[in-house]
This record gives sequence, C-alpha cells and structure tokens, in this order.
Amino acid sequence: MGQGLRPDRLALPQPYLLFLGDTVEAGFAKTAFGLRDWAPELCVGEFSLPGAKVSAGLPQLRPADAADRGARSLVIGVANSGGFIAETWVPALVEALEAGLDIVSGMHAKLNCIPELRYGAERLGRRLIDIRKPPENIPIATGLKRPGKRLLTVGTDCALGKKYTALSIARAFAARAVDADFRATGQTGIMISGGGIPMDAVVSDFAAGAAEMLSPDAAPNHWDVIEGQGSILHPAYAGVSLALLHGSQPDVFVVCHDPGRQRLLGDEEFVVPSVEEIVELTIALGRRTNPAIRCGGVSLNTSALDDVAAAELCAAETKRLGLPAADPIRGGPAFDALIDECLRS
Amino acid sequence: MGQGLRPDRLALPQPYLLFLGDTVEAGFAKTAFGLRDWAPELCVGEFSLPGAKVSAGLPQLRPADAADRGARSLVIGVANSGGFIAETWVPALVEALEAGLDIVSGMHAKLNCIPELRYGAERLGRRLIDIRKPPENIPIATGLKRPGKRLLTVGTDCALGKKYTALSIARAFAARAVDADFRATGQTGIMISGGGIPMDAVVSDFAAGAAEMLSPDAAPNHWDVIEGQGSILHPAYAGVSLALLHGSQPDVFVVCHDPGRQRLLGDEEFVVPSVEEIVELTIALGRRTNPAIRCGGVSLNTSALDDVAAAELCAAETKRLGLPAADPIRGGPAFDALIDECLRS
Repeated sequence: MGQGLRPDRLALPQPYLLFLGDTVEAGFAKTAFGLRDWAPELCVGEFSLPGAKVSAGLPQLRPADAADRGARSLVIGVANSGGFIAETWVPALVEALEAGLDIVSGMHAKLNCIPELRYGAERLGRRLIDIRKPPENIPIATGLKRPGKRLLTVGTDCALGKKYTALSIARAFAARAVDADFRATGQTGIMISGGGIPMDAVVSDFAAGAAEMLSPDAAPNHWDVIEGQGSILHPAYAGVSLALLHGSQPDVFVVCHDPGRQRLLGDEEFVVPSVEEIVELTIALGRRTNPAIRCGGVSLNTSALDDVAAAELCAAETKRLGLPAADPIRGGPAFDALIDECLRS
Repeated sequence: MGQGLRPDRLALPQPYLLFLGDTVEAGFAKTAFGLRDWAPELCVGEFSLPGAKVSAGLPQLRPADAADRGARSLVIGVANSGGFIAETWVPALVEALEAGLDIVSGMHAKLNCIPELRYGAERLGRRLIDIRKPPENIPIATGLKRPGKRLLTVGTDCALGKKYTALSIARAFAARAVDADFRATGQTGIMISGGGIPMDAVVSDFAAGAAEMLSPDAAPNHWDVIEGQGSILHPAYAGVSLALLHGSQPDVFVVCHDPGRQRLLGDEEFVVPSVEEIVELTIALGRRTNPAIRCGGVSLNTSALDDVAAAELCAAETKRLGLPAADPIRGGPAFDALIDECLRS
C-alpha cells in the first residue's frame, strides 16, 4: 500500500517473524494469514513449535536466523479462544528476545504480565508491544469535520471481509495514483499497516474520539480508507460500530456482506440484516457528522462460489440495489466499477 | 424508591456524609445535590473545608460526628473539570478514614493512587470505593431477550434530565405499587441507588454486555427503569447510547428533551435533534433486541418556564406528537398520563 509511518501512528518494528505456536487449526492463525496475504514484504519467515499443524507457507526460521535476515520483531500470529499466551510458548518467546527481536502481540493477555518475558525484555533491552492497548491520550470526540476524504467499510455482521475490503480498496486507490492510507482498527490490521487503534479496547466514552484520532486532518485529496468493526445492527458490537462511524465521518462507505450467511456468526438467534437496512441506517446516523455521506457500493464475500456464480451474483446485486456490487478479492470490472463509484466527486 | 440491594449490584456503605471540599461553584456539586434531592434518607450531613461557598443545606458535621449519627462512608459530592482529587482535600479524607468511614468517589482519579489514602485505608481497615470502575467480569452481550420489563430514558442531548426522569418514573411506578428498580449508569445515580454500572468507563466491546448485566433476568411484571446516557445522535457519545439501548432491550423508552436548548451542550456546532428523530431512530435500532419497543412519552425539562407556560408547552407537545409530554419534576396530570402510557400493556 506504500503508506509511510506517520507520527500519529504506532511505529512497529518491521519486518516480522510470524510465530505460529503449536496451533493445529487454521482458523486460529488468522493474524499470520492476514500478514502473509497483505504484507508479504514484512514477513521474513515463520516459526512454529513441534506439534504445530498450520503453516503460512513461509520459510521456517529460528529467531536468530530471522534476525540475520533482517527481522526486527516476532509477531504472535495465532489466537486462541481465551486470548491467552500459552505456557508452552514462553521459551520460544524468550529465545526471540535473546535473538534481538522485540515481541508484538494482539492477544488480550498482556506480554509484560508474564514474568519471564518482562525480565527477559528488561535484561536484553527489548520491547514488548501489546497491540490491543489503545493510546492513553484519546480525547473526547468533537464531531467537527476534518479536511481530507474518508472511506469506511461497514458490515451486515462481523468477520465477513471488512478488513480485506478496506485493504483492497486502499490498494486499488494507490494503483490509480490516489493518495490513500489504510487505517487499521483491529489487531491484524494494525500489524499489517504498522499502526492504528484497536477500537474494541477503547473505553466507550472515548471510542468516537479514538476514531477521530485515527484519521486526522489530511490534504483535501487524501483518502483514509478505514477498516470497519462489527455492524450497526449487531446486538453486542453496534456501539463500537456507531462510534467508529461518527468519528470517521466517512464521505463514502462500502457495505460488506456474505450472501451465504443467514444468521449472525455466533449469535444464531439473529438474522443477518439486509444490505438495504445497513445502507439506510448508516446514512441516517452517519450524516450527523458528515451530511454528504453516501454509499459507494457493496463488497460481496463470494469465497463459497465458483467464478461464474460469483459474477452472476455481483451482476444481479448491482442491478437490484442500483449500486456497484463486487468481490474485491476477485477484482475485475465489477470491482473497478465500485472503485469508480467511491472516487466519483 | 424502596429497592433493596441485590446480589447483582454493588453494595455501597450507606448512609453517607457528603463531602463538598472547598467548592465555590454550585455547578460542581451536582453529585451532592442529586443525593440530597433523591436520597435524603441516605445523607446524614455535609462536610466542607474553609473557603467552601456551596451547601446542600444539610447539617455541617465532622466525620466523627457523622459516624456517631450512623454514617458509614464519606462521599465525594463534588466534581472538578479534571476529575482529580485536590491535595487540599486529603487531610479531610484521612480524617474520615480515622473516624471509621469508608470513602466513595466518582472521580476519574482513583482513590488508591493517593498514597495517604491507600496507606490510611490499609492501616485502618477501611474501603476506598471508586464508582467509576466497572466490574471486571462483564461478558460480551448475547442480545437474548431477558424476562422482566424494562424502560430506558433516552435524550436529544446530554445533561438535560435523563437521570431525574428515570428516578421520577421509578418513584411513580412504586407509588402505584408496581415492582420497579432504578438502574444507574452514571456516578451520581450509582451513589443514589447504591448500585449500577458506570457505562462511560466500560471498554467499548463490552458496553452492551454491561447493559445486559445491569438489568438481569427478573419477574415478568418487574420493571427496571434504566438511566440513559448521551444521545443516539451525539457526535461523541452515541456509541455508549446505542450499546445501552441494545443491552437494555427496553419495552418502553421515554425521550428527554430541553425545549430551550437549540445547540448541543459544549458542541455548539450541532443542532439539538428533534424529538421525532430520536423516536424514529431509537425504534429503528432498538427493535433489533426488542421488536416490541415503543415510545412511552416525552419528558420536557421546563425548569426555565413558569407554571402556566410549562403546562401550555406540555399540552401543545402532547397534541403535536401524539404522545404524553410532561415535566416529571412538576408531576401533575400530564405526568400521570405519561406513566399510564408507559405501563399500558
């Protein structure tokens, strides 16, 4: 994506060695896969423990070898359901510190709560970087319009492509020589881009202020492409989504949707809202801080479909909704049309 | 209000001695005034330092005298713009600990960060209770409908009567022998009712879960009357308001409005939304977790009007909106009609 680190962003020590622990399920390696897919130039290799059954397909390196190849930190590339750092991982993490690497983690558990890591980092002069810790100086949001253009991905549910869509759009903007930055709001996005704010960890009174901080004043033609979180109609996370919407003040939003999903992921009692409902509510709420807010299109996650079925679905949804519908991962003319619509002035 | 403390609620040591510090402006004594107005039976007296110019009109007592009269804690009844505990207060707070009182604070600053208080409390076996600290075991919201009935006050802005309206409604329900609890979501409400959760201090991912925790399963005819926060159209706090709406799952909401306010308090760039806008959006969003949500009426803050003008305004708004409009602080037939509408099944 080519964005440089800016003083308002967290500077992460890159490139990374991806730590996969002793993970046996691919679903728990989302962070490693996200880094491999979106920032391969930042990944010098992977490091896993005996028993691991998951690979990101990168060279297997011990920390010392990775440091020789330029790695500056080990990234914990796996998650588990409690968000904890397993005891079996600790010797490997200490080995990384001894090899001269900092450690970057997006887990709920904090690295310096593990004595071996805290003492090791102190002794060796290394940094323990917890991505899920928001900055301490977040102001209350002002709601005042900031210069620069902004695009936010929103969703009909969690975990259906808001990050991948934002990354794809930022890349497509860059390919058209549009000055753009991807703005991360979750742990994987932060590791990919080297900066951002973990919205889910911000105290609620300050959540809109955090979103304002994330995309500060910019040049009039500069675009911030902001990773969305949750859904305005998600029973648990809608507050996060609304704070992000108000603080981001998007000129354009793109609705991310999985056409095969009928019920909310992990909340089977709830139907997935329609794209139209999300468009209508996002405009009704978003115009409070940006009266010019508009929908730039629909991002469909067609990973379960073959090429023909995916193309047919995008064409049918484009016609039905009167908005460009495309799968950014497939690209092609449908996605070009979505980018055209986002950039239309 | 007559609600007893329940195991799901914070048990505060009551009654209180209200500490007014050296405050010279009445606006900074909102917590003391709220306690005096809504829980006079919990206030044995007030305690201020030389130079104070504000009084809640209660007997002036030193901590030892207050303890003799049954006080179990000293409550910091004042706020300042930084939410800090002034150095000049510390000797008085230590005196309270020595007199056998616990200390209750709703300030941002934490009591045990002040060494004299921390050591004093340890030495004397007293408690330092920070109200603005949410519980640690808040779950992610499920969105699942809980038994019992719920009413939430919502607003067109901050600081226009959501707490006083909820307290008035809970009191009116009790007067009609309706089983009801007031549920506090801010510091003053928590001190008044002896329990609650400070919504503004909850990490945003858990905000809706905190609202679910605040009004747990109850008997089918029991009402939780929940203090609202912010406004669904407030540029800084809408996320908090939406999380509270989704987690509260209200059957009925009452819109609180100050008819004399044109611009948001402290955010003059923004016009105050109309009552109709708030009704429409609250239903559109709230029906996600309670499809039967309805508006029970409008609470008008008519403190700037005389009796005749206030009555005329309530009558005119009732007619215009097709919903009962009343000032709960004035009571009377208009407020009776609002209570009727809230309880209508």
